[in-house]
Amino acid sequence: MIDLRSDTVTKPDEAMREAARTADVGDDVYGEDPTVSELEARAAEAVGKEAALFVPTGTMGNQIAAQVHTEPGQEVLVERASHVYKYELGGLARHSGLQVRTLDGGDRGVPTPEQVDAGVVEEDLHRPGTGLLCLENTHNARGGVAIEPDRIAAAAEAARGHDVPVHLDGARVFNAAVALDVPVTEITDHVDSVMFCLSKGLGAPIGSMLAGPEEFVDRARRTRKLFGGGMRQVGVVGAPGLRALENVDDLEADHERARRLADGLADVDGFDVRPPETNIVLVDVSGTGDDAEAVLERLRERDVLASAMGPTTVRFCTHRDVSGEDVDRALERVMAAMTGR
Amino acid sequence: MIDLRSDTVTKPDEAMREAARTADVGDDVYGEDPTVSELEARAAEAVGKEAALFVPTGTMGNQIAAQVHTEPGQEVLVERASHVYKYELGGLARHSGLQVRTLDGGDRGVPTPEQVDAGVVEEDLHRPGTGLLCLENTHNARGGVAIEPDRIAAAAEAARGHDVPVHLDGARVFNAAVALDVPVTEITDHVDSVMFCLSKGLGAPIGSMLAGPEEFVDRARRTRKLFGGGMRQVGVVGAPGLRALENVDDLEADHERARRLADGLADVDGFDVRPPETNIVLVDVSGTGDDAEAVLERLRERDVLASAMGPTTVRFCTHRDVSGEDVDRALERVMAAMTGR
Amino acid sequence: MIDLRSDTVTKPDEAMREAARTADVGDDVYGEDPTVSELEARAAEAVGKEAALFVPTGTMGNQIAAQVHTEPGQEVLVERASHVYKYELGGLARHSGLQVRTLDGGDRGVPTPEQVDAGVVEEDLHRPGTGLLCLENTHNARGGVAIEPDRIAAAAEAARGHDVPVHLDGARVFNAAVALDVPVTEITDHVDSVMFCLSKGLGAPIGSMLAGPEEFVDRARRTRKLFGGGMRQVGVVGAPGLRALENVDDLEADHERARRLADGLADVDGFDVRPPETNIVLVDVSGTGDDAEAVLERLRERDVLASAMGPTTVRFCTHRDVSGEDVDRALERVMAAMTGR
Amino acid sequence: MIDLRSDTVTKPDEAMREAARTADVGDDVYGEDPTVSELEARAAEAVGKEAALFVPTGTMGNQIAAQVHTEPGQEVLVERASHVYKYELGGLARHSGLQVRTLDGGDRGVPTPEQVDAGVVEEDLHRPGTGLLCLENTHNARGGVAIEPDRIAAAAEAARGHDVPVHLDGARVFNAAVALDVPVTEITDHVDSVMFCLSKGLGAPIGSMLAGPEEFVDRARRTRKLFGGGMRQVGVVGAPGLRALENVDDLEADHERARRLADGLADVDGFDVRPPETNIVLVDVSGTGDDAEAVLERLRERDVLASAMGPTTVRFCTHRDVSGEDVDRALERVMAAMTGR
Repeated sequence: MIDLRSDTVTKPDEAMREAARTADVGDDVYGEDPTVSELEARAAEAVGKEAALFVPTGTMGNQIAAQVHTEPGQEVLVERASHVYKYELGGLARHSGLQVRTLDGGDRGVPTPEQVDAGVVEEDLHRPGTGLLCLENTHNARGGVAIEPDRIAAAAEAARGHDVPVHLDGARVFNAAVALDVPVTEITDHVDSVMFCLSKGLGAPIGSMLAGPEEFVDRARRTRKLFGGGMRQVGVVGAPGLRALENVDDLEADHERARRLADGLADVDGFDVRPPETNIVLVDVSGTGDDAEAVLERLRERDVLASAMGPTTVRFCTHRDVSGEDVDRALERVMAAMTGR
Repeated sequence: MIDLRSDTVTKPDEAMREAARTADVGDDVYGEDPTVSELEARAAEAVGKEAALFVPTGTMGNQIAAQVHTEPGQEVLVERASHVYKYELGGLARHSGLQVRTLDGGDRGVPTPEQVDAGVVEEDLHRPGTGLLCLENTHNARGGVAIEPDRIAAAAEAARGHDVPVHLDGARVFNAAVALDVPVTEITDHVDSVMFCLSKGLGAPIGSMLAGPEEFVDRARRTRKLFGGGMRQVGVVGAPGLRALENVDDLEADHERARRLADGLADVDGFDVRPPETNIVLVDVSGTGDDAEAVLERLRERDVLASAMGPTTVRFCTHRDVSGEDVDRALERVMAAMTGR
Repeated sequence: MIDLRSDTVTKPDEAMREAARTADVGDDVYGEDPTVSELEARAAEAVGKEAALFVPTGTMGNQIAAQVHTEPGQEVLVERASHVYKYELGGLARHSGLQVRTLDGGDRGVPTPEQVDAGVVEEDLHRPGTGLLCLENTHNARGGVAIEPDRIAAAAEAARGHDVPVHLDGARVFNAAVALDVPVTEITDHVDSVMFCLSKGLGAPIGSMLAGPEEFVDRARRTRKLFGGGMRQVGVVGAPGLRALENVDDLEADHERARRLADGLADVDGFDVRPPETNIVLVDVSGTGDDAEAVLERLRERDVLASAMGPTTVRFCTHRDVSGEDVDRALERVMAAMTGR
Repeated sequence: MIDLRSDTVTKPDEAMREAARTADVGDDVYGEDPTVSELEARAAEAVGKEAALFVPTGTMGNQIAAQVHTEPGQEVLVERASHVYKYELGGLARHSGLQVRTLDGGDRGVPTPEQVDAGVVEEDLHRPGTGLLCLENTHNARGGVAIEPDRIAAAAEAARGHDVPVHLDGARVFNAAVALDVPVTEITDHVDSVMFCLSKGLGAPIGSMLAGPEEFVDRARRTRKLFGGGMRQVGVVGAPGLRALENVDDLEADHERARRLADGLADVDGFDVRPPETNIVLVDVSGTGDDAEAVLERLRERDVLASAMGPTTVRFCTHRDVSGEDVDRALERVMAAMTGR
């Protein structure tokens, strides 16, 4: 089985497992887990923020950030295909009483400053003011596009012109930095807070980091407790997380494999392949006459797993547990599956 | 002063005031106010529903409807310029933990069945399902357009094809029926619940009605208590409400005055007037070189009041307290204000 | 039928109805209803606060106050038999994410300073801090006890020693002031905000007032909109409300009738009557061998209405629509009902 | 340093670390982590429920259970010193719109059936119905008392007589079973759902289990996603969790050490020691003239850590990382600290 559904399926390698085995741990609710403390310090430094907090999932990181930045009843500007809007079970409304206002970020998945300006609502008697702008980089549903720092900067600057803070869902922000060949801080410097995942392309089994100003992180720590995310000897997953931070450069290989995969997929009749910028390959399969689910089923029969990103859109995601040879083998199988041979 | 800001400014007439004075009242929390009971029965009948409930405001009616129809965490499909989304302080999220998904209803302010189909989300592990479709007729921010029954029917049918109920914000639904020259039930028959206002063009001082199936209204009654809307001797405002129900035919005169006003405004240099369908006239004033606030200020100096519906959009609203002569006088003053004479 | 269920059943008198008929009204959402503006000014003055706001119900007033004073997740100290805790549908949690902490106010329905001190929670990593102390005067479920100013002062001072603001549910605070023969400000001076009802003993058909500092009331006005309480030509109920403010002195007669009623009820076999301090008479009927519902049924058959305040507690409430002769007649009927003659 | 603050400080032993290193893992969001699946099956079996779910913390487990069992606005019956009420940041109100009603469980920390009966509220127009009874066993703040199965059964049966489900916060329920020398199912059979911690006395670094009927756990799985608790290769902490389940019998040694500690502490002048039933020893230190914080400070200077459970109450908690010799050493140091020698 070649699993191209998501980079979330990556399994911890031997080094990570060994790091977990030997980790120096303590009770993190008391702030006494040295491994997590080191991870938080290193993560903060990596994205150029004052402080960082370990959270069990990216979803929790995004939701905590939204709650800390806002007041109930405010609006949050979100991109219309963003994860925080589409795949977090309406948490913005549910946890924090926030109304979403969707902006269409188009192919590059990021609103223009004009869109931000037009989307910001000034608080008055009838209208909740805007409390937050959420961006996402790379943008998953837009096909893992690596959004350029100047686009992030422009949107963020527009928000801040209205005193609206900016949170970045950077679940895969290191993929963006690697793809654009810039330090990640060129992206994260423009936002007030950023969440990134240790558990996707970077390979850790569990965990994400939420980084921002010291005072923001202090409040986030308390909100994490409210969400039930205040765990104990967190170093056992923090140690793999520390190793994951060293895997950033490996992401380039994921991207290379994605390009290789895309090239091959382009040869399949009826596949309209969007050239990948990072580790995600979106294919519009409508030309095959089948919908995404039918195509996925055919691939599954040939031991290739992918996922659906829309009625006729299939997503392939490369990651550290899929080698170049796996990609070649996957291509053969996809071709066989789609030609019925 | 000629007040064209909104039909909400209408004052109760002598007949309404006299009705209030002589109303037979009781404690409506105990269900013992005969006047309100009659009003609820008459209102239900008027819009062809099993039952109806008096609510202090249209906002409360819409918010109660949304809470009764849904579960926390679900999505609500709303038109992107609708009142429930823009002007109710984020209540859907705040009161009921609902995430909005906005559909662009275009010039006619109503999503197509295709848009509804595409907007409905099936509940899964990551996604809140869709719990409600909200429509608005007439559509205020779209210029009081009177949405045709077949458009309402098509959108509602699409929703119900996904087992999604439909609520109509019919604050001005009688304006729509009168303008289209159809019984209001041709509109309301297609929706599960409808809220309409006694206090706008119909002239009552206070109150709106929320109508729907008996069981829905029973639950709405309890939710009204939660919102703090369970009042006592409600007949004192219910009696004017009963009179207001008799004012439906007068709305045609409001529409006639709106057309007269629009015709005159079209002569103002730089005014781009949208032909009104009901009692709302939207004017794009960008051609004057001024923004909406500046134009409003100039009108105010000449004792004409209107309101802003956007940076360069001015809304004039006719109602029963503005006569044909008032309209003529208003036109003279607007012309004078805009030409500076 | 002699209705002693509640003072909420009072019907507006001719003067109130006439005041409604002739009231000068405007659109209160625009702040243009002169009658309501006058009512708000007079109400603020009456309870010695900077400003006041008309709200449709006491429940909405209490719930708005709680939301404005607090942040989500905080605790609210409430008396264990208080209205805001028992009869507002869990609104503190539902609307505002507030956790209640109940204090036992005992016979006088008010916690001691020691109880307040012990109940206040300092915010830490695991615990929400205390955001509000709610008091109630007169205390309904404790039998309409008129809580002395010094008890209110002591509890409030204790709260403020922890920087916790104090809201008074003063639905019947004028009953307390009249019974204690003190200016109502001797009570209200000790609290940050107070809600009182125009619609109970004071006889107005609809409405309550929420008073407090100017900035508090400004925020409350916006929150009222969120709750759906922002009505239009409110003067039609505001005018009776103004008349109601003149009825304060009449409450003494309600209290006199309550004492007369209590004296008579004490003669009924098996009735254990608590001597009334205001207009509420609580009777423990367990000595009759019947529970409250059975007793109420027997009274109803004799055209006397009362209500249940517990499994074996019946509440009789005097008010301006029940005369001294009505009380005498009621006593005869109760005696007949309970002796079966 | 001898750390008697809490059994949460236990560190994973070599066997657990080795289990983590070699665990067979997968993406648990896809339901593909075999280790967690095994853990969930074993945990369900251990407490006699159909199914179980891994959650990052006990707090999240309790909060999810409350949300799944109830509807917003309902009441939850909680013991007045219970963790879910005191130490979960008001989550019941915040996450789920639930109002708490506190019952005083007295020394044994469990309400009587009569208290439950009296605490249950039937839903009506003014009152939220009761949606859940939460029990806690062992009861932390009551001194780790091991509540007898028949007391749990009686309270639960009372609740179910009103169709109210029962959740058990069994963070330390295995301590109770071991102390009472009964199978844990004699306790858990009486409740609808139970949460227990792998991370306290059982020694796992991270994680708790939420068990109940299949349909309950299905819904809990989705709610876990909403809370941000849907992690990926959870087997790395699930494997230590499986080992933790084998540590149940070791709890008896913790209890033995607690008794030994209590015996020694009783010799300290001014210490009033509650005889421990499990691994928690509460000491009222008011006899020393110092408050809890002052005593803790003195102990800390002698390298003994304990925690405060009230102004004058110190809690000592034994666990697998404190040996019998550690206890003896701790006693010497406490004696020295308190006598100043």
